[in-house]
Amino acid sequence: MTKKEITIQQGIMAFPGFPIVLVCVKDNIITVAAVSFFSFGDRQENPPMVMVGIVPTRYTYELLKETDDYSINIPTIELLEAIKICGSKSGWEVNKFEAANLTPKTAKKISSYLIEECPVNLECKVVHKVELQGSSHTWFIGEIVAAYQQDSYDRSQAILYWPREYRFIGEVIKK
Amino acid sequence: MTKKEITIQQGIMAFPGFPIVLVCVKDNIITVAAVSFFSFGDRQENPPMVMVGIVPTRYTYELLKETDDYSINIPTIELLEAIKICGSKSGWEVNKFEAANLTPKTAKKISSYLIEECPVNLECKVVHKVELQGSSHTWFIGEIVAAYQQDSYDRSQAILYWPREYRFIGEVIKK
Repeated sequence: MTKKEITIQQGIMAFPGFPIVLVCVKDNIITVAAVSFFSFGDRQENPPMVMVGIVPTRYTYELLKETDDYSINIPTIELLEAIKICGSKSGWEVNKFEAANLTPKTAKKISSYLIEECPVNLECKVVHKVELQGSSHTWFIGEIVAAYQQDSYDRSQAILYWPREYRFIGEVIKK
Repeated sequence: MTKKEITIQQGIMAFPGFPIVLVCVKDNIITVAAVSFFSFGDRQENPPMVMVGIVPTRYTYELLKETDDYSINIPTIELLEAIKICGSKSGWEVNKFEAANLTPKTAKKISSYLIEECPVNLECKVVHKVELQGSSHTWFIGEIVAAYQQDSYDRSQAILYWPREYRFIGEVIKK
């Protein structure tokens, strides 16, 4: 197979995409594709963990100095405009719940809000922060402490993002 | 929107999927959906970083005690059988390059092999390990030190995975 060397910056762009989510810290929202699971945990003592990457200049990063929790809210295509607003406006300047026409919902176990319009909400408590010199992002690892899902939610309703494309989730591959 | 509380284990399953990749450490291969970018870096001093999560009982985890590098190889649908073999067989027992009929290629800057049949290869040097108590996975953060891509590669050729589905990458969403 003929391949050519590309720049390392082009290399990181070769990934197809990551799930795009709306992360709430306190009463603010930020759009994030820097999201992954971290641990499946086990069914006994250890809860599953997730992680989100936040750029330190963001308002969300400041809020995470004041609180140690966040919610992950999985949006669907109907919320594409809200995704763009929460990814481009700054919480330093606007109330993003208002700007994106989203409804804050009080969580059960954390101080940050959930987003009513998203079919999946995960309440997460920060347990570890990974901050490496020279990194564009600081990663906040959180334990999931509560989770909610709309009955009709299906993974195929979620959205992928990677610069600079939003993509649908594709079909299941028949084995 | 009517939602009901689900278990936290169900919560982590709500993600739509993550890119599935083949990770080589030395001469072994493991199939991994525990993969994410970590940092975009910058165009001056700091290279982009990625991360892969490895379960500590895996042979790959042992190999990462002996070496501090790995390659990330992005497969396409033609390699589905190889993906399954490298995700189910153990490197303790078989040579996975042989078992999956894949070709090892010498890397330029790391000791681990690249996979010739994958249209994207990223050479990575481990810079940090994140190991939290109670976590199913240990995450190895790596700087990308070299990258290669087939001319005709397109993100839509990659594959997503999340238990227990392989999915195609969907269409680009028109803005």
